[in-house]
Amino acid sequence: MDRRSFLKTSALGGAGAAALAAPAVAGSHARTLTMVTSWPRGFAVLDDAATYFENMVREMSDGTLLIDKKAPGELVGALEVFDAVSSGQADLYHSADYYFIGQHPAYAYFTAVPFGGTAQEVTNWYYHGGGEQLHDELGEIFNLKGLLAGNSGSQSGGWFRKEINSADDFNGLKFRMPGLGGKVLGELGASVQNIPGGELYQALSSGALDGLEWVGPMADERAGFQEVAKIYYTAGFHEPGSALAASVNLDVWNELSDQHKAILRYASMATTHYQLAETLSNNGAALARLQQQGVKTLQFSDDVWDAFGAASKKVMDENMGDELFARVRQSFEASLANSASWISKSDGYYVQQRVRVLGGE
Amino acid sequence: MDRRSFLKTSALGGAGAAALAAPAVAGSHARTLTMVTSWPRGFAVLDDAATYFENMVREMSDGTLLIDKKAPGELVGALEVFDAVSSGQADLYHSADYYFIGQHPAYAYFTAVPFGGTAQEVTNWYYHGGGEQLHDELGEIFNLKGLLAGNSGSQSGGWFRKEINSADDFNGLKFRMPGLGGKVLGELGASVQNIPGGELYQALSSGALDGLEWVGPMADERAGFQEVAKIYYTAGFHEPGSALAASVNLDVWNELSDQHKAILRYASMATTHYQLAETLSNNGAALARLQQQGVKTLQFSDDVWDAFGAASKKVMDENMGDELFARVRQSFEASLANSASWISKSDGYYVQQRVRVLGGE
Repeated sequence: MDRRSFLKTSALGGAGAAALAAPAVAGSHARTLTMVTSWPRGFAVLDDAATYFENMVREMSDGTLLIDKKAPGELVGALEVFDAVSSGQADLYHSADYYFIGQHPAYAYFTAVPFGGTAQEVTNWYYHGGGEQLHDELGEIFNLKGLLAGNSGSQSGGWFRKEINSADDFNGLKFRMPGLGGKVLGELGASVQNIPGGELYQALSSGALDGLEWVGPMADERAGFQEVAKIYYTAGFHEPGSALAASVNLDVWNELSDQHKAILRYASMATTHYQLAETLSNNGAALARLQQQGVKTLQFSDDVWDAFGAASKKVMDENMGDELFARVRQSFEASLANSASWISKSDGYYVQQRVRVLGGE
Repeated sequence: MDRRSFLKTSALGGAGAAALAAPAVAGSHARTLTMVTSWPRGFAVLDDAATYFENMVREMSDGTLLIDKKAPGELVGALEVFDAVSSGQADLYHSADYYFIGQHPAYAYFTAVPFGGTAQEVTNWYYHGGGEQLHDELGEIFNLKGLLAGNSGSQSGGWFRKEINSADDFNGLKFRMPGLGGKVLGELGASVQNIPGGELYQALSSGALDGLEWVGPMADERAGFQEVAKIYYTAGFHEPGSALAASVNLDVWNELSDQHKAILRYASMATTHYQLAETLSNNGAALARLQQQGVKTLQFSDDVWDAFGAASKKVMDENMGDELFARVRQSFEASLANSASWISKSDGYYVQQRVRVLGGE
């Protein structure tokens, strides 16, 4: 029962008013939503975003809307959250929608696509370029109301045991990369696997994987990959600004009060704003600590980037037979071209000049 | 009266319960905050941010917290909002804190400083580098609780009637630029004025100004400057990511419920997230329209940027005798160095490669 219904019922019943005076009562009559996540508790960046979202919703609703966050395995597995919420087994999930390109390839765009947008460019598209409406249209197929709550920023190229000196070095490499990026590495001959974050350290340690990409320095350091691999590429083609999704079962969403819908929607925006800033504030220092532990940081060569580009175009084009994928892609690319053009003339040019005039990086 | 007090009172009084059932009642017992702004109604970007903030607060509080937005002249003038809120004449303001460097020079950092941070870098510092705490410390001097609600993105270099071919061309130029950026142009010999946005078109038309900077293409087009000047520099040194402030009288803030405080704080984050994305989504198309109206877009030369750099260092150093200014500067610069280092290795390198591989800008 939401707060408005509760107030109405208690007033009509004539007996609930005294109970309203006690601070604990709102909580005891709160609506609690079960949120299944793809992140083990305490996983930097990702579980942080889920936790901020949970806290903001509780604080702004004065405890009338609570989120009960479940880590993988507590209700369903890390990659089973989509089906659990679609079917109504859980009320919402916090995850990355590109895990669900098997359900629909267009879900890639609601996390990140190869050669796609930075976090800012993705946000521009989502709220002011048609993205949110397309997320809703896609969600209706699966009985979901999508929200974006969190962003990793530009994800690192990944962890390797050996340097990548040409695109051929991906041939036969056992590598973890989800989404369409993984399909791109598959084009280069890699044996690509989508393994949940909580199982990656073990897979890399045991040799089940030769390499992996996870998030970025802050999250990767916490996961401990520096203990089992020493080559780290800082920029990657695959996820230039990965959005996290907090998607709600559509029946549950439709029954929420307008107030609770507003709190969820604006909390999702505030979560991205607050958590992305934390991640970007911490990545620099985390990278320095990784280097102190003997990690060698590199960038892929132009030749390797060219190979990523050619394979990405092929993978993106393979999905164009799907009408909704094609519309989502067109919408995203139109927004990106428009955003990126201005950003390069303003922020981009400014940062170049700042570096040139003041020195530094 | 806030909602919690109202519920408590009505329960104790024993008579308010029936009234609670009517949807209109929450509104009639709502707490209304008077918000004075520095922006005429409908001013793109700036009044948009104030309006989004107002709407988010109303929706998330179910009408128990309302903001009554006042344009300049309705209660006080555009640049009088700080004193009005500090004194308790109004409850909060929506403005740009660098208008108030006369009250304290450190306020520059809560909008933008010359060679400072992009919008993302400012956000990183504010929430995860000590900025918010310093805003509070500064606010206590003036009886204010600061919040950041909105960001213009990187501001354009400005509108001119003649091209700027060397730093000497600023000598004697009657130019509008607020904040420490204005002091920098003063070092180059410009006659610098801080005129509110609503009066700029007239000042440029009449020749009272030779040039001005306002915000960026979306806001500048709406203001109509293309009708009276034809030279537009897209990147500027002075405001690489200008935050807008929604600062509350501290006595008013302290009396708000925890729920209403949370709603104001997270609404301020969501406002920045949503409005900045809108601005960045619209600037590209607005710039193209300006060009169609005969506006010539340029970048300042390296020599001019070098002159901006030297004068900026001088202006920033002049304020270092103030202990709080010095601490705010140190905090900001430490955060910026850390953020910028990672961003250049990830987002920055990625965008370079995207442009190289895919073409475009």
